[in-house]
Amino acid sequence: MNRTGTGSTAPSSDAGGVVISVDAMGGDSGPATVVAGLAKFLGKTPGARVILHGSAEVLTPLVAKKKIEKRVTVRDAADVVAMTDKPSHVMRHGKATSMWSAIDSVREGEAQVCVSCGNTGALMAVSMVRLRKAEGVNRPAIACLWPSRNPSGFNLMLDVGADIRADQDDLLTYALMGASYARNGLGIERPRIGLLNVGVEDHKGRAELKVAHDLIARAAPVADFDYVGFVEGGDIPSSRVDVIVTDGFTGNVALKTGEGTASLISELLREAFRKTPLSRVAALLALTSMNRLRKRIDPRRVNGGVFLGLNGTVVKSHGSADATGVAAALKLAYRLAKSGFSDKLAARVASVGVLPPAPGQSEAERIEDEAT
Amino acid sequence: MNRTGTGSTAPSSDAGGVVISVDAMGGDSGPATVVAGLAKFLGKTPGARVILHGSAEVLTPLVAKKKIEKRVTVRDAADVVAMTDKPSHVMRHGKATSMWSAIDSVREGEAQVCVSCGNTGALMAVSMVRLRKAEGVNRPAIACLWPSRNPSGFNLMLDVGADIRADQDDLLTYALMGASYARNGLGIERPRIGLLNVGVEDHKGRAELKVAHDLIARAAPVADFDYVGFVEGGDIPSSRVDVIVTDGFTGNVALKTGEGTASLISELLREAFRKTPLSRVAALLALTSMNRLRKRIDPRRVNGGVFLGLNGTVVKSHGSADATGVAAALKLAYRLAKSGFSDKLAARVASVGVLPPAPGQSEAERIEDEAT
Repeated sequence: MNRTGTGSTAPSSDAGGVVISVDAMGGDSGPATVVAGLAKFLGKTPGARVILHGSAEVLTPLVAKKKIEKRVTVRDAADVVAMTDKPSHVMRHGKATSMWSAIDSVREGEAQVCVSCGNTGALMAVSMVRLRKAEGVNRPAIACLWPSRNPSGFNLMLDVGADIRADQDDLLTYALMGASYARNGLGIERPRIGLLNVGVEDHKGRAELKVAHDLIARAAPVADFDYVGFVEGGDIPSSRVDVIVTDGFTGNVALKTGEGTASLISELLREAFRKTPLSRVAALLALTSMNRLRKRIDPRRVNGGVFLGLNGTVVKSHGSADATGVAAALKLAYRLAKSGFSDKLAARVASVGVLPPAPGQSEAERIEDEAT
Repeated sequence: MNRTGTGSTAPSSDAGGVVISVDAMGGDSGPATVVAGLAKFLGKTPGARVILHGSAEVLTPLVAKKKIEKRVTVRDAADVVAMTDKPSHVMRHGKATSMWSAIDSVREGEAQVCVSCGNTGALMAVSMVRLRKAEGVNRPAIACLWPSRNPSGFNLMLDVGADIRADQDDLLTYALMGASYARNGLGIERPRIGLLNVGVEDHKGRAELKVAHDLIARAAPVADFDYVGFVEGGDIPSSRVDVIVTDGFTGNVALKTGEGTASLISELLREAFRKTPLSRVAALLALTSMNRLRKRIDPRRVNGGVFLGLNGTVVKSHGSADATGVAAALKLAYRLAKSGFSDKLAARVASVGVLPPAPGQSEAERIEDEAT
């Protein structure tokens, strides 16, 4: 691969439009898929421009072929982060990678948001180092969309794997960040927040959850969201709630369990339809219905895990996303950037400082007293 | 309700057959549903007899109507544990309840296994107090079945909610108990055990998981199971593994997330088929296929959470189970009792004592050293 940069000029973000920084390399489907998704997205979004990071030798002809060179600036980067690279390795040796370069475009302010299909752990590590945590945030989080019974068709869950633990203050921060995302990314004026637990009764769950329960309830009126209290796994796709708050371990297991269950059911459904000649006829007739359902729960439509709590927004597209999936992630990134999400989120988290202190003793002490 | 017992004679478990102690009260569907399920089960299982606990006034006519009085002994109990009763309340005031009475039949040795549709928390609390934890078990667990791609059609997961936490030793005990259940309840000679985590790589996850990872790997050859290592949420219904080990918080969230996802999909499927006249015709033709699928993932077929780690086996049937669900829980209880599961499990857990000690230092110290 070519290590000499082509030194191109970046589109200015002052021109009024949104500039998205895209890491073209490192996904399982290759840069051609990223460029195809890019063309799809740009065709529908006149206001957007893109800085595309990766091998110029590979990318320039792909961009030319799609006739999007006027809106895409290729930024040459010689190295690629592999899916198997350890985050610690990338942090030490990754300066020449397309991922690093893509994040630096946000750091330098020439783009408002970064999108990558690469290695999640490395992307989070590089984002942490280059963008730094936003003020008041101890643990950044990854938020994902979840097909749901709500009118928007989606619920939001965080953290789904940025960190394997979260204490009560982190959970409160997740609630604030999730509310901000739901407002700016999904257009929900007054999001309903739920805290994931093993039961909905107040006395259930681990100690830090009981403290977080109280903290979030007290933050709700200040931060313009509704707190619905504890929710259970079954509520994640429900219309009771818009945002589900949990630690990254539980959230990651829940996310993958939901995906695994959906894929088991669709596999068994295909099998059932293939079984007999009559069922094959039924399958043909049911095609439109099935496609309607598939569209509703299409994982490509919910593509895009958003890193929250950094000085800048990073959208992680699924490694194996096809052009439609990449376009969905770009659309989400565009929407967040256009709303000025990053600044609003920072302001929202800072607003926690104005929470009235619990009377007499600390919240943690009070809850622990009650539990005994 | 009638508080004077009818003082009946229990069927002897020495007669060679299996005796099941059934709590007829406290389920959402009422005692008539339990008796209907009982009749269904007894019709297919000639070797089984039952002690049925609850209001004799209510139960005796129900049993007579189903013509199963020769194989069912009604044991009068005046009180019922409500779904809303707190476990602590039931432990203090629950001696006259059908639940307490049903568990005491196992404690006294007149039945080998207990089945109840009642309040899970109360059932676990009373089971702990009356049956006591088996030697070597610190935290008992609830194991549930999960529709899977395996030939048996099921995987096993524990703990799904007996406790909200589990340390490395508990996770090892869960592995041993889960292997024993898979062998005796599902007939899997050499079960494959996986430990639930947020990634399959050895370095992923919380500290106690890394220690448990090593403990379970070392126990595998001693305890006759295969350890496949870390598994993710998406592997729960897979054919990579037979038994999934996790703490009760994560397990409970995963279980309810899986159920919630399945119910969302089937709801959307029904909607999709109802949309147009053509899709309604397709739905008719697809009826058999859909029923085939429904049967495969029917939650009633997987009904029965098994309490493991007590001196005696307790099966928790779903509170809203219908007759088919109750019959499935009874069948599972019968199978476990017939295999002498409870004694085998105790022997298996005791076998942990023979694990070779880690060379030089404790396992926890070694892993922590490696992590730093």
